[in-house]
Amino acid sequence: MPMQDDEAYMAMALAEARKAYDLGEVPIGAVLVDNESGAVVSAGHNLRETELDGTAHAEMEAIRKGCKKLGRWRLSGTTLYVTIEPCAMCAGALVNSRVDRLVYGSLDMKAGAVHSIFNIVNHKLLNHRMEVTDGIMADQCRQIMKDFFAMRRKQNKEKKGRNA
Amino acid sequence: MPMQDDEAYMAMALAEARKAYDLGEVPIGAVLVDNESGAVVSAGHNLRETELDGTAHAEMEAIRKGCKKLGRWRLSGTTLYVTIEPCAMCAGALVNSRVDRLVYGSLDMKAGAVHSIFNIVNHKLLNHRMEVTDGIMADQCRQIMKDFFAMRRKQNKEKKGRNA
Repeated sequence: MPMQDDEAYMAMALAEARKAYDLGEVPIGAVLVDNESGAVVSAGHNLRETELDGTAHAEMEAIRKGCKKLGRWRLSGTTLYVTIEPCAMCAGALVNSRVDRLVYGSLDMKAGAVHSIFNIVNHKLLNHRMEVTDGIMADQCRQIMKDFFAMRRKQNKEKKGRNA
Repeated sequence: MPMQDDEAYMAMALAEARKAYDLGEVPIGAVLVDNESGAVVSAGHNLRETELDGTAHAEMEAIRKGCKKLGRWRLSGTTLYVTIEPCAMCAGALVNSRVDRLVYGSLDMKAGAVHSIFNIVNHKLLNHRMEVTDGIMADQCRQIMKDFFAMRRKQNKEKKGRNA
């Protein structure tokens, strides 16, 4: 797919991240796309606090909804767009689900499992590997995270101020 | 917890694996236990084919049910028992859920992410690490897997025979 398509889908993933932001969740969003038709199969955003579920990351939501929609656990023929580099859990889920291609926006130096800490999606000993494109709309993907954490620090400071 | 407790909980995880076996699923089972009371919080078994969901591993089922039961995403104060070494997805989920301790039966040389291929549950750069005990009832945990794949090879041979 040409770069401009990647940007269009990443913009949808960013819109998902915005939904997480509005819920008070760490703003990460994901979209699963059918490679042949270009149709969006499913989308998801981080829902850890809302669902009280440590596995409810954006990618997991998109993958699980995608499996349900397509009626199969093998997601061959799809691309997963996500605003931030996947963690080990999500990278492992992409391998387990046989996703063909991963496109992400910004690195996660603290937990990333594609380039930063591990490389789970392209490991010679695992039984599935995928194409990876990174850095698509990286600035916007990073900025919404920065805004979120700045807002949260400010809220925490205000709370402390009130309790002092 | 003393070794005999570990064996009692692993026997429950094996009973979960047997449920997967009976469904025609790769026989892996898991149990989540409250460290203080010793109560079983939740249990799960592999349901990938049944649910048509590549994320429906035994550990994920136990973790997600455990979060629901306890009403929190932080599973601090719990131990996860699983018959086979967790993959990257499940090891990542254990870290994300802040599980205190992992006990597993047999190694998974092809996908294990605790000792075999990665060490995700005790990595100096990640924000959570856990105690790990391995080798509990390893022979039984391995044997049910061997039995399953032998049975499946036999079925596939018979199928091919009928179609010849």
